[in-house]
Amino acid sequence: MNTITKQSINGGEFLIKETDAQDIFIFEEFNEEQKMMAQACQDFIDTEITPNIEEIDSMKNPEIIPNIFKKAGELGLLGISVPEQYGGMGMSFNTSMLIADIVGSAGSFSTTYGAHTGIGTLPILYYGTEDQKAKYLPKLATGEWAACYCLTEPDAGSDANSGKTKAVLSQDGKHYLINGQKMWISNAGFADIFIVFAKIDDDKNLTAFIVEKSFGGITMNEEEKKMGIKGSSTRQVFFNDCKVPAENMLSDRGNGFKIAVNILNIGRIKLGSGILNGAREVISQAIKYSTERKQFGVSINTFGAIKSKLAEMAIRTYVSESLTYRAGQDIEDRINDLVASGMEDAIAKLKGVEEFAIECAISKVHGSEVLDYVVDQGVQVYGGMGYSADAPMERAYRDARIVRIYEGTNEINRMLMVGMVLKRAMKGEINLFEPAMAVSQELTSVPSFDTIDTSELFAAEKEVIKKLKKVFLMVGGKAAMALQDKIESEQEIMMNLADVMVEIYAAESAILRTQKLVSLRGEEACVHQIAMSQVYLSSAVDRINAAAKEAIGSFTKGDEQKVMLMGLKRFTKMDLVDTKTLRRQIADYMIEKGKYPFS
Amino acid sequence: MNTITKQSINGGEFLIKETDAQDIFIFEEFNEEQKMMAQACQDFIDTEITPNIEEIDSMKNPEIIPNIFKKAGELGLLGISVPEQYGGMGMSFNTSMLIADIVGSAGSFSTTYGAHTGIGTLPILYYGTEDQKAKYLPKLATGEWAACYCLTEPDAGSDANSGKTKAVLSQDGKHYLINGQKMWISNAGFADIFIVFAKIDDDKNLTAFIVEKSFGGITMNEEEKKMGIKGSSTRQVFFNDCKVPAENMLSDRGNGFKIAVNILNIGRIKLGSGILNGAREVISQAIKYSTERKQFGVSINTFGAIKSKLAEMAIRTYVSESLTYRAGQDIEDRINDLVASGMEDAIAKLKGVEEFAIECAISKVHGSEVLDYVVDQGVQVYGGMGYSADAPMERAYRDARIVRIYEGTNEINRMLMVGMVLKRAMKGEINLFEPAMAVSQELTSVPSFDTIDTSELFAAEKEVIKKLKKVFLMVGGKAAMALQDKIESEQEIMMNLADVMVEIYAAESAILRTQKLVSLRGEEACVHQIAMSQVYLSSAVDRINAAAKEAIGSFTKGDEQKVMLMGLKRFTKMDLVDTKTLRRQIADYMIEKGKYPFS
Ligand SMILES: Cc1cc2nc3c(=O)[nH]c(=O)nc-3n(C[C@H](O)[C@H](O)[C@H](O)COP(=O)(O)OP(=O)(O)OC[C@H]3O[C@@H](n4cnc5c(N)ncnc54)[C@H](O)[C@@H]3O)c2cc1C
Ligand SMILES: Cc1cc2nc3c(=O)[nH]c(=O)nc-3n(C[C@H](O)[C@H](O)[C@H](O)COP(=O)(O)OP(=O)(O)OC[C@H]3O[C@@H](n4cnc5c(N)ncnc54)[C@H](O)[C@@H]3O)c2cc1C
Repeated sequence: MNTITKQSINGGEFLIKETDAQDIFIFEEFNEEQKMMAQACQDFIDTEITPNIEEIDSMKNPEIIPNIFKKAGELGLLGISVPEQYGGMGMSFNTSMLIADIVGSAGSFSTTYGAHTGIGTLPILYYGTEDQKAKYLPKLATGEWAACYCLTEPDAGSDANSGKTKAVLSQDGKHYLINGQKMWISNAGFADIFIVFAKIDDDKNLTAFIVEKSFGGITMNEEEKKMGIKGSSTRQVFFNDCKVPAENMLSDRGNGFKIAVNILNIGRIKLGSGILNGAREVISQAIKYSTERKQFGVSINTFGAIKSKLAEMAIRTYVSESLTYRAGQDIEDRINDLVASGMEDAIAKLKGVEEFAIECAISKVHGSEVLDYVVDQGVQVYGGMGYSADAPMERAYRDARIVRIYEGTNEINRMLMVGMVLKRAMKGEINLFEPAMAVSQELTSVPSFDTIDTSELFAAEKEVIKKLKKVFLMVGGKAAMALQDKIESEQEIMMNLADVMVEIYAAESAILRTQKLVSLRGEEACVHQIAMSQVYLSSAVDRINAAAKEAIGSFTKGDEQKVMLMGLKRFTKMDLVDTKTLRRQIADYMIEKGKYPFS
Repeated sequence: MNTITKQSINGGEFLIKETDAQDIFIFEEFNEEQKMMAQACQDFIDTEITPNIEEIDSMKNPEIIPNIFKKAGELGLLGISVPEQYGGMGMSFNTSMLIADIVGSAGSFSTTYGAHTGIGTLPILYYGTEDQKAKYLPKLATGEWAACYCLTEPDAGSDANSGKTKAVLSQDGKHYLINGQKMWISNAGFADIFIVFAKIDDDKNLTAFIVEKSFGGITMNEEEKKMGIKGSSTRQVFFNDCKVPAENMLSDRGNGFKIAVNILNIGRIKLGSGILNGAREVISQAIKYSTERKQFGVSINTFGAIKSKLAEMAIRTYVSESLTYRAGQDIEDRINDLVASGMEDAIAKLKGVEEFAIECAISKVHGSEVLDYVVDQGVQVYGGMGYSADAPMERAYRDARIVRIYEGTNEINRMLMVGMVLKRAMKGEINLFEPAMAVSQELTSVPSFDTIDTSELFAAEKEVIKKLKKVFLMVGGKAAMALQDKIESEQEIMMNLADVMVEIYAAESAILRTQKLVSLRGEEACVHQIAMSQVYLSSAVDRINAAAKEAIGSFTKGDEQKVMLMGLKRFTKMDLVDTKTLRRQIADYMIEKGKYPFS
C-alpha cells in the first residue's frame, strides 16, 4: 500500500504546477540518524583530510589517497547506497545526497569519493546481474576495491557515445578483447575495477563492461597536471587487448549509453549536493577572517561592501540547498512509490532518478555556479591573502572550477534540461501546451487588477513565482511554436530558457523551504531565511527578465515582440525589496554566529 | 599656445556631458611608430617569455626572470616613460599604456614589468629631485637596477596609510633608520631599489624613501606561494635599522600617502590596458581550439552556445579597449595642455592623471572584471582541457585573478570613483547638481514623446546613453541629498552607483570609438564593431537597471520610490536588440579570421 500522502509531482512539472510547502522535504528535516551519519563523515574529514590536505594535493605520497579511501571504507562511508545484503549500509537516496554534501568539503577527496561511490559503483548496483553484484559490490562497499568510470575519450567528451574504444568477442565466445584509449579517468591511478564503455564491432551505441585491473592489458599515462583537485588521481587509460570475460558485460549489448546517461543523472544531483558543504565552509572561513581582519581600525565585515558579499554567498547556498534536497526527496519518494507498487529495487531507483532528470541537471548547474560565486567572493574577502596558497581560499577557488565541467558541462546540462521539458511536453508527459496557450491568451486580454491578500507570509512572493512560470510558458511556448524542430540548433535561446527554468526552480524551492520551516519553528525564528528567500527572488526576477528579453529579441519581431515584452513586464512585476537592509541583517546574524548558520 | 582643438572634458564629466566621437582617441589611431614599438614588444614576448613560461612559473631557476628583465631593458622596454635625458625613450602616456597592454599577455612577467616601470620607477620620475632622477632613472630605464614598491604591510593593505614602518632621523641628521615589515612586495626577490613608505616619528602620514638594497638592513622571507603569476617574485621584506641617507627622502615629509595614491592612479589605468592583450590572446586561443575541437561531428564553435561565448568575450574586450585608451588620451592631452601652459613636466603628468583618477579607477575595475570573464569562459570553451595545466587556459585563469585584488581592490576602487565624483561635485569642479535637479524635475513632468531621428548611426543608442546618465544623476543626486555625509557608510549604494558609472563610461566609449572608426573606414567595414557596441549597450542597460533598482530600494520609500522607479523605467528604455544574431555574426567573423580581429 502506498502510504505517501503528499501531492506527487512529476519531473519538470514545477513549471506548471504549484507545490504546497508541506509537500517538499527540507534540509532541517533530516533525522537524528542521518545527522549522526553526517557528523561521523564530518569528523572523518576533520581528522583524516583537513590536516593532510597539502600532502594529499602534493601527490608526493602515492599511498595517502588510497589509505584515506580504505579508512573511509572501514567507516562505511563507501557503502552508503549499497544495500545491506551486499555489505553496504543501504541508506536512502537523500541520505546519500547528504553524505555527498558533507564529503564535498574534502577537496580532492570528494572527487575520489564521487567517482568511486557514484559513477564507479552504481552501474553495477543498478545494472549488474545478481552474480556481478554479489562479486563486486561487497568489495566496493568496504573499499577493498576502488572503482573508476571510463567513458570519456580524447575525441569523445560531451559526445560520449562517439567513443572509439572497441570490444571484440573472441572466437570461443568467452572473452571480449577491449582496445582503446580513455581520458580524464578519476581514480584510475589506484582503481581495481574499471567500468568501461566500448563499442562491440560497429555498433552505433556503447556497451558497458566491468573490467578488473587484474585482467591485464591496462596501462596508463602519468597523472594529469590540473588546476585543482590535485590530489585526485586523473589519468589517461589505455586498453591493449584487455581480456574481459563475456559475463562481465553490464546489462545488454548497446545499452551502455543509456547506462552512462542514467548514472550521470545521479552523478549530477550528487554534485549539486556535493558543492554545499564546500560552500558553507568557505562562507564560515570568510566570516571568521573578515572578523579578525582589521582595516581602517575595524573588522572589515563592518563594511557594507563585505556584509553584502557574505550575505549573498549565504543566500545562494541556502537556495541551492533548498532545491537540491527538494529534488532529492522527490526522487526518493518516487522510488518508494515504485517499489511499493511492486517494481524491483534497482529498476525503481533508475526510474525515480530518470523521472527527475530535469531537476538533476538544474541541481548541478545551480550548485556549480553558486560554488564558483562563493569561492570567488571568498578570495575577494581575503584580499591579497585570497591569492596566497597559505590561506584556504586559493585551493577552494581552484578546486571549485571543475564542477562546471565534468559530469556534463553546464552548457550540455542547460541544453538537456530544456530539451527534456520540450520532449516531455511533446510526449504528453507534462501538460505544457495548455498552460502555454492560456498564457498566450492572457497576453492579449486586459490584465486583472485583483489585489491579492498579502497578509499571509509569502503570498506576494508566490504570486511572483506564478507569474515567472508564465514567463517560461510564454517564451518557451512561442519559441517551440516558432522554431519547431529547429529550436535545438538555436542554442542561445535554449540557454536563455534554461536560465529561466533554473531560477524559477531555485526561487520557488527557497520560498517553499522557508515556508515549511516557519510552519515548524514559527516566523520569528526564521526572519533570516525569510529575508534570504526574498532577496534571492528579487534578483532571480532580474535574471529571468534579462534572459527572457534576450530570447524574445532573438526570435520575434514587430507586434508579436511588443505583446511579449508587455507580457514580460507584467509577469516580472515585483515590489522592490530593500536588499541592502536585508543583506545586512543576514550578515550581522552570521557574524554573530561566526559561521554559516542555516543548516 | 594651446593648439588642441578638441573639446576638453574634465575627469568625471562624462556623467553630465556629451562627447563628440571625434574628440576621443581610439585604438585604431596608434601610429606606425607606436605600432612598431608594440610589435617589438610582442616579438620579445614571443621569443623570450612564451617558450619559457613553464620554467618562469616554476621559479626553479632564480636567474630566469632577472635575465629576461635585463633583456627587456636592453630593448628599451623598461624606459618607455622615462625621458630621454635620463636614458629612457620618453614616450607619451598613451604609448606607455600600449606597451603595458602588450606586456600584459606575458603572464608573471607582466607583474614584474608593471612593478618596475610603474610603481617602482614613477615615484622617482614624478617626485624625485634632479639629483635623485639623475642617479636612479638611467639605471632603472636600462634595467641595470630593478625596482620594487613597498607600501603594503601585514596590517596595512587597503588602509595603506596605517602602516607601522618607522623612519627615525639620526642625531647628526644624516640618515634615517628604517624599521618595519612590508608584505606582498612584487620584485622584492631581485630588486636593487626599494621605494619604501614609512612614518617619521609619530607622523599621521607616510613619507616615501628611495632605498638601495646595498644600504643594508634589508632581509626577506621566502617567495610567497600564490594562485598565479607564480614566476613573479612576491616577498615579505623586513627593514632592520636600514640606514637611508637623508637626501633619499622622496618629496616632502608626510607626502608619502599622496605619492602612493597618485602613483596608484597611474598603476590602475595601466592595469586597465594591461589586461587587454591577455584577453585578446585567450580569445584567439579559444577561437583556434574551438575550431580544431570536434564533437558531434563538427567544430564546437558551430554551436550557438560556444559562438555566443566567443562573441561576448570579444565584445567586452573591445569595450574595455575603447574606454581605457579614451581615458589614456584624455590624460595625455591634459598633460600636454598643462605643459603648454608652462607647468613643469613631472607636475603636469601628475596633475593630468589626478584629473582623471575617476576614469583610472573605472579602467581598472572594468578591465579586471572583463579579464576574469574572458578567462572563465576560455576555460569553459576548452572543457576538460580547460582544467589541464597542459593547455593555456589553466594558467590564464589563475594569473588573471590577481588583478581584482592589487593596486586597490575593486571594492576600494568602486568606492573611490563614486566618492571622487561626489567630492568634485561638492567642490564645484563638476557641475553635477544642476543636471541632477533638472532630472529631478523631469521626473514629475510629462515625458516628451518627441521621436528622435534614428536615420543617423547610433542616434538611438546615444539617446539611450543620455538617459542612462540621467539614471546616475537621479539615483546619485537623491542619494547624496538623502544620505548627506552618511553616504560613505552606505557602501552598498556606493557600489551600485559605481556599477552605473562604469557601465555608462564603458558603453559610451564603445559607441564613440565605433562612430569614429566608421568616420574613418565607412560603415560597411565596421559592421562587427557596430554590433559589438549595440550588444554591449543592451546588456549595460540591464546591469544599470538592476544596480539602480537595488540602490533605489535601499534608501527610498513610498511615493518617492514610485516616482524614481517610473523614472528608471523611462531612462532605461531601449529597443530590443537581437543579441543572438549579432553575436553569431561577430563570432563567425572571428572564426573566419582565426583570432581576435578588432585591434
Ligand atoms: C578532472 C576531471 C575528471 C574527470 N573524470 C572523469 C571520469 O572519471 N570519467 C570520465 O569518463 N570522464 C571524466 N572526465 C571527463 C569529463 O566528463 C569531460 O571533460 C566533460 O564531459 C567535457 O568533455 P570534453 O572535455 O571532451 O569537452 P568538449 O566536449 O570538447 O567540450 C568543449 C566545450 O564545447 C561545449 N560543447 C560540446 N558539445 C556541445 C554541444 N553539442 N553544444 C554546445 N556546446 C557544446 C562544451 O560545453 C564545452 O564548453 C573528467 C574530466 C576532468 C577535467
Ligand atoms: C601578488 C601580489 C602582489 C602585490 N604586489 C604589491 C607590491 O608590489 N607592493 C605593495 O605595496 N603591495 C603589493 N600587493 C598588496 C596589494 O596591494 C594588497 O593585497 C591590496 O591592496 C589589498 O590589501 P590587503 O591584501 O591587505 O586586503 P584588505 O585590505 O585586508 O582587504 C580585504 C577585503 O576587505 C575589503 N576592504 C578593505 N577595506 C575596505 C573598506 N574600507 N570598505 C570596504 N571594503 C574594504 C577589500 O576590498 C577586500 O575585499 C600585492 C599583493 C599581491 C597578492
